[in-house]
Amino acid sequence: MTEKQTWSQRFESSLHPAIALFNASIGFDIELIEYDLTGSQAHAKMLAHTGIISPEEGEQLVAGLEQIRQEYRQGKFQPGVDAEDVHFAVERRLTEIVGDVGKKLHTARSRNDQVGTDTRLYLRDQIQQIKSQLREFQTVLLDIAEQHIETLIPGYTHLQRAQPLSLAHHLLAYFQMAKRDWERLGDVYRRVNISPLGCGALAGTTFPIDRHYAAELLNFDSVYANSLDGVSDRDFAIEFLCAASLIMVHLSRLAEEVILWSTEEFRFVTLKDSCATGSSIMPQKKNPDVPELVRGKTGRVFGHLQAMLVIMKGLPLAYNKDLQEDKEGLFDTVNTVKACLEAMTILLREGLEFRTQRLAEAVTEDFSNATDVADYLAARGVPFREAYNLVGKVVKTSIAAGKLLKDLKLEEWQELHPAFAADIYEAISPRQVVAARNSYGGTGFAQVRKAFLDARAQISEQQE
Amino acid sequence: MTEKQTWSQRFESSLHPAIALFNASIGFDIELIEYDLTGSQAHAKMLAHTGIISPEEGEQLVAGLEQIRQEYRQGKFQPGVDAEDVHFAVERRLTEIVGDVGKKLHTARSRNDQVGTDTRLYLRDQIQQIKSQLREFQTVLLDIAEQHIETLIPGYTHLQRAQPLSLAHHLLAYFQMAKRDWERLGDVYRRVNISPLGCGALAGTTFPIDRHYAAELLNFDSVYANSLDGVSDRDFAIEFLCAASLIMVHLSRLAEEVILWSTEEFRFVTLKDSCATGSSIMPQKKNPDVPELVRGKTGRVFGHLQAMLVIMKGLPLAYNKDLQEDKEGLFDTVNTVKACLEAMTILLREGLEFRTQRLAEAVTEDFSNATDVADYLAARGVPFREAYNLVGKVVKTSIAAGKLLKDLKLEEWQELHPAFAADIYEAISPRQVVAARNSYGGTGFAQVRKAFLDARAQISEQQE
Amino acid sequence: MTEKQTWSQRFESSLHPAIALFNASIGFDIELIEYDLTGSQAHAKMLAHTGIISPEEGEQLVAGLEQIRQEYRQGKFQPGVDAEDVHFAVERRLTEIVGDVGKKLHTARSRNDQVGTDTRLYLRDQIQQIKSQLREFQTVLLDIAEQHIETLIPGYTHLQRAQPLSLAHHLLAYFQMAKRDWERLGDVYRRVNISPLGCGALAGTTFPIDRHYAAELLNFDSVYANSLDGVSDRDFAIEFLCAASLIMVHLSRLAEEVILWSTEEFRFVTLKDSCATGSSIMPQKKNPDVPELVRGKTGRVFGHLQAMLVIMKGLPLAYNKDLQEDKEGLFDTVNTVKACLEAMTILLREGLEFRTQRLAEAVTEDFSNATDVADYLAARGVPFREAYNLVGKVVKTSIAAGKLLKDLKLEEWQELHPAFAADIYEAISPRQVVAARNSYGGTGFAQVRKAFLDARAQISEQQE
Amino acid sequence: MTEKQTWSQRFESSLHPAIALFNASIGFDIELIEYDLTGSQAHAKMLAHTGIISPEEGEQLVAGLEQIRQEYRQGKFQPGVDAEDVHFAVERRLTEIVGDVGKKLHTARSRNDQVGTDTRLYLRDQIQQIKSQLREFQTVLLDIAEQHIETLIPGYTHLQRAQPLSLAHHLLAYFQMAKRDWERLGDVYRRVNISPLGCGALAGTTFPIDRHYAAELLNFDSVYANSLDGVSDRDFAIEFLCAASLIMVHLSRLAEEVILWSTEEFRFVTLKDSCATGSSIMPQKKNPDVPELVRGKTGRVFGHLQAMLVIMKGLPLAYNKDLQEDKEGLFDTVNTVKACLEAMTILLREGLEFRTQRLAEAVTEDFSNATDVADYLAARGVPFREAYNLVGKVVKTSIAAGKLLKDLKLEEWQELHPAFAADIYEAISPRQVVAARNSYGGTGFAQVRKAFLDARAQISEQQE
Repeated sequence: MTEKQTWSQRFESSLHPAIALFNASIGFDIELIEYDLTGSQAHAKMLAHTGIISPEEGEQLVAGLEQIRQEYRQGKFQPGVDAEDVHFAVERRLTEIVGDVGKKLHTARSRNDQVGTDTRLYLRDQIQQIKSQLREFQTVLLDIAEQHIETLIPGYTHLQRAQPLSLAHHLLAYFQMAKRDWERLGDVYRRVNISPLGCGALAGTTFPIDRHYAAELLNFDSVYANSLDGVSDRDFAIEFLCAASLIMVHLSRLAEEVILWSTEEFRFVTLKDSCATGSSIMPQKKNPDVPELVRGKTGRVFGHLQAMLVIMKGLPLAYNKDLQEDKEGLFDTVNTVKACLEAMTILLREGLEFRTQRLAEAVTEDFSNATDVADYLAARGVPFREAYNLVGKVVKTSIAAGKLLKDLKLEEWQELHPAFAADIYEAISPRQVVAARNSYGGTGFAQVRKAFLDARAQISEQQE
Repeated sequence: MTEKQTWSQRFESSLHPAIALFNASIGFDIELIEYDLTGSQAHAKMLAHTGIISPEEGEQLVAGLEQIRQEYRQGKFQPGVDAEDVHFAVERRLTEIVGDVGKKLHTARSRNDQVGTDTRLYLRDQIQQIKSQLREFQTVLLDIAEQHIETLIPGYTHLQRAQPLSLAHHLLAYFQMAKRDWERLGDVYRRVNISPLGCGALAGTTFPIDRHYAAELLNFDSVYANSLDGVSDRDFAIEFLCAASLIMVHLSRLAEEVILWSTEEFRFVTLKDSCATGSSIMPQKKNPDVPELVRGKTGRVFGHLQAMLVIMKGLPLAYNKDLQEDKEGLFDTVNTVKACLEAMTILLREGLEFRTQRLAEAVTEDFSNATDVADYLAARGVPFREAYNLVGKVVKTSIAAGKLLKDLKLEEWQELHPAFAADIYEAISPRQVVAARNSYGGTGFAQVRKAFLDARAQISEQQE
Repeated sequence: MTEKQTWSQRFESSLHPAIALFNASIGFDIELIEYDLTGSQAHAKMLAHTGIISPEEGEQLVAGLEQIRQEYRQGKFQPGVDAEDVHFAVERRLTEIVGDVGKKLHTARSRNDQVGTDTRLYLRDQIQQIKSQLREFQTVLLDIAEQHIETLIPGYTHLQRAQPLSLAHHLLAYFQMAKRDWERLGDVYRRVNISPLGCGALAGTTFPIDRHYAAELLNFDSVYANSLDGVSDRDFAIEFLCAASLIMVHLSRLAEEVILWSTEEFRFVTLKDSCATGSSIMPQKKNPDVPELVRGKTGRVFGHLQAMLVIMKGLPLAYNKDLQEDKEGLFDTVNTVKACLEAMTILLREGLEFRTQRLAEAVTEDFSNATDVADYLAARGVPFREAYNLVGKVVKTSIAAGKLLKDLKLEEWQELHPAFAADIYEAISPRQVVAARNSYGGTGFAQVRKAFLDARAQISEQQE
Repeated sequence: MTEKQTWSQRFESSLHPAIALFNASIGFDIELIEYDLTGSQAHAKMLAHTGIISPEEGEQLVAGLEQIRQEYRQGKFQPGVDAEDVHFAVERRLTEIVGDVGKKLHTARSRNDQVGTDTRLYLRDQIQQIKSQLREFQTVLLDIAEQHIETLIPGYTHLQRAQPLSLAHHLLAYFQMAKRDWERLGDVYRRVNISPLGCGALAGTTFPIDRHYAAELLNFDSVYANSLDGVSDRDFAIEFLCAASLIMVHLSRLAEEVILWSTEEFRFVTLKDSCATGSSIMPQKKNPDVPELVRGKTGRVFGHLQAMLVIMKGLPLAYNKDLQEDKEGLFDTVNTVKACLEAMTILLREGLEFRTQRLAEAVTEDFSNATDVADYLAARGVPFREAYNLVGKVVKTSIAAGKLLKDLKLEEWQELHPAFAADIYEAISPRQVVAARNSYGGTGFAQVRKAFLDARAQISEQQE
């Protein structure tokens, strides 16, 4: 650390080396470099546009920044820890390339609005990528659902068999969650895509800048209306972290189900070799590592959300160095969510197979048609709560007798209540139990087919 | 606990008393009773509308539920822990009032969709109330800002004096945060105001219900498209908790500033007796308890957000009892946010007074006009980074000499750089330093005046 | 709110009623009243002991405080919100009872050290109660384990069948977790049981108090060595919340297993009616509400831990009002942990039954003896990794052929590797597979029997 | 990814490349390599010691592992992502070096107990390092305190001037916090330093291993008594994360104070150039980046704690892949705490200077001696609450008159209460106000001197 810091003229002595290392953000904010270059190019163009610098100076700056971009992509520009941060690293290299005019780049700008601009440009891109991944994930769900509209699967509440379902219906529930995630990211995007550039350190600038011009060059929807707010707002990051946490909640729920489904006990799916791993010691093992990792990684995303909230709590206006801590958690969240969405999409697409035979057997071996008996009576005028109580008794005596409801004789049914007729057997067959739940949004096959088509149509709209 | 549970026909023995207590939610879900009654009335009307029950039965149920509402309001209906939850308490009382027809209310419905409906009705109301409180808070900010457009206050970054500001500009930063909060709650509202009623336990129902009809009666914007999703989705609660956390972030930042401003060291505001408290032992103390409590309460809201995320992680579809835990944290968050918004609004409105004299002195006693010297040179062609370095040196030597920038003689300025002229003194006077930052969103008085008028206009729109 | 606050002499006007409500802690700190009385009695005795007040005054104060305790227990003393907090409520009532001498109680004390004392006395008691509950929980685990040392149960990693286990061994894992919890609470206790009394507002006092005397009366182990630290330390609460979170982690893991075990797919346990609940709509349902609630309640405890950390972050010394927010989360955590421990203990003791027949079948139907084949070869000189690879192949071909390992003929084994002999069949029988893992801490029956006896012995020591 | 996984014999096809990347932990668990080598050497020695392998084989394995250590240190062994994890990477390289005997290393061991061993060895070391850093931090506090026993500084509650303090007393409060941190880490250490080696995958092993022998070689205090617990316990990591969070709480509090003290308003300290940074735009700025970053980094540590709790919640026994997620948060916490302790120690040692002149003035300019007036009266028989009320009035009228208490004439005092005499002026002089708080743990100079000496003595004991 021999070089003096860019800001060192007011300072007599250099930073303690350990402190310099502690302060430096170049280790992680290098991730922002391309966004920083793009932002600086727009700033330079604006400075020229408004006459704060000359057109030639503007062109020199833009070209110099473009050269840095090429150098970076070719691995020739690799600033070390003595650069403090990516912004100073770029400014210094720029001045090497274009000479003194490089020292004009920072006119009417502060690192505070600059880094805010970079972060928003970064996150904006990432949100679009995640939205696109969500669509892929939804598409895979639809592709599987399409094949399984009439496949039955036990439905659970409290992880107890409740009522049988169309497997497609089950999968479409995740489609809906992903759809909300997609929409939510759209809302977040609106609050991300606002330009703080030109807010200066905290108070705006004395130069006759044109913030809207620069914002337009960078495709921002609008500009921050208050400079203090512009440099110290991190709502957009927290909102994103919350949306990311919800994506992880949804993925973790599906992950949990895949883990359950692939147990020896459930045997609802077979994991393929390409998406499962083994044990170092137990030769027979085939483990569902992908959903387990997804479930585990949920924790780190929640943690990053919490961390960012903690950072912001009680900070006085405007910028405080604490805000430098916004980046690593954000980057890791983006990377985690993207990796998990990709892994789960691959897992669904090619890593698991539903064992339809086993599923068909499963739905016949329990009392998950009991509600239908109560509904049968209620539809014939017995008050629901009364019908429900009657059926509760039958279930109890059947269990004691080692029977299922389908094993009861018609006399037994009629003994219970005279309203029972021979059509009770049809009413409680698993396929009919599913088919009959034909209320809007229900698991009845007709409904599910309709819901599937709606979903296919929606996802086309999401494309736009 | 002598009475058997509603669901006990399949059960031979009663619940262990301690377990009954452990399971019971009546202690807190009684908060939902009016929403439960309203939801049940809509359900009853729908059952009659679709012919599942007769019109007379429908009317009886609606009237019976209305009677319970009156009894509750008059303190006559106070279900105890043996009621398990508010839903069973109501159903039981209803059957006492209207007889056997009461047992028909639960036709084509489950507690799973019922409680989901109640919670959304509750939260919908609360969001509207909080939005209205946000407007009040914003209005107070505007009222104070209006009086202080030309009041100067030191502006800070890193809590170090940075550049002086218009006090109104500072306050308007909080206006912007609250505006985002208001908008964000609007987005959340859209995802809250969707009806799960009719999703049944998880799979829909065999009865020919009309979910859209019931939803319309309850002023829901739409209905859940997938029954599994409808009963197990808690995204809306988490999104709200995140929006609430952000409100608390903003309030905690303002709270921190008020605490600082009211210290003996800052003395920027005087706390009035009506909003301050004393010590039990130190007779001189006047403490800023309100902002301190607001800052402290931020923690509990963050905690509730985290708790809800933890609850949802990895839950298999569809309903699980874990979801019962969604309520207390939600209720406490609503109550906390409302209480904090109210307290901060009162504090601003009548609890503190800015000490303008002290503020005026404060902005003259430091080097927060140093950027303006650099800008002065940069505007005269000196590359910004060079100008910045020059000024850094002057600051260093001035501090050593115990002088401020305004104390330097013109010769001293010109020795530093020939571009300095007599107008440098005007350029660095605090009022001019503020006025000159006239970029869009900046602290220049003209900008602030415009921003203030925009804000007044916006808040009228928010009213709608 | 007509009465003036105790601290109001320096104040001209009363608190705004809404602010008074916002500030008041009496709504929840009434929970501390008995500890407050006990603490005040010790303080009064110390004041008399040191001659700061007369012996008669001391006796009057102690008697007056005892009277308040009786009034409280009889429901006659119920301070309202105008009391601000429990401390002022008690002091005021005391002065009513004993007259002017009551005004001497607060000599050489502040609410800051007073509330710190109360909270520690409270938590100290609660920790002892929780430790005692942990012992009960451990005892139940041991009682069940004792009956199931030779009961086999599949063992899992990645929720895939891994190696069969002694059921007692499985249960003893939870015994060990609870043991750590018990020890950890002991460590926490040491840092809870330190007296802040006499630290005053922040700086100690001018009176010749005897802090060690008061601490001894209250059975504190020691006193805080620094008054600033004494009034502003909340480490002890955070440490407790972390220990409580770990208890919840352990209970949530057991809860998850009970939920899995009671599914239709696992059928490892039967839930008894006294600890299960039904559905409002599905007559057949018997739901594991207890473990589900325990799992869900884990979230709130994590949330309280996080909340308390957030409260403390960045607070300047010494006391800040934010600290008032330490109580509700602490109380709720205590209540939650106690309720969950009680519920899980009841559930284990009388709410579930292991289905040993089903368990015995389960361990014969999979490849969880594959490691034993590899070990068999390794014990005969084949390098482990080579043996492991060979067995991997057998598993693959067996699955393809629809066979289990026990179905292979001796020729088939010997074709694979000449080291196999007839004793391979014994080696891979489930009972032998379990018995053979006789390494220290392993599932071999001999080891488990020894571990069980150790545990019984340990729990006796825990009693002390 | 051309190579097949170590566990691939049961698998027909390779992992999907994206999934392989998703699963791989080598990117971060390489941090454990030296601990892994050490652990494997102990395992090999134990295998030889018990005759499971021959003495020659044992020596070959130990030597081969040592060679890998040298290769790693020289940068020659750099396993890539195709190695999956550090354990497989080492085993493979070992087999290259020593041939087939390398395949015997994994006898009687699983990655589950192996990685648990590695993590504990790592954390054990780190805890010792952090404890040593805490001592350094405490030593610096003592060194500064020693110079400032008689330096006065305003003491605050609610950030309002409360009572003046000895600066040493203030600093010793942080000494006490660090002392608790040091002790707490000792408690954590006891639960970290337990060996899971030999627990196998989950159930122990069929080989006649000697776990205690291996544990002794690795300096573990004891071994896990239950194999399931041994492989799935992460309490030790969570406990550490909580202890780390508390260290951060304490550092963040000190950080907040340094930030306040270095403001233009407080001016209690001067930041030296070696520990402060500048602005990119405001030439005059000298920012307290170190304490700001420390305060900000508090969030990430809290986040990691939360993440780990979330990971563990509801995991069934025994090992699940989710546990792989325990490492990055743990490593980052260790690195963060170490960096923050180092930075704060440097800051205190050479980065800031107390402005004693300014501090001396500060304590004379407020009403922080008001309690002493009340104490003065109380010591003369006036009931404390009455005295307190009288003084409240004086404060009020003095503020109105623009006077401080020392400005009141004796007649004015005596008008207030006849007990006042001329010694009141001495009683309320700042130095006497501090000196008089001579209760144990108080700020009186005599007490502080004693506390300082105790602290010096304690820190020597901490050394051992």
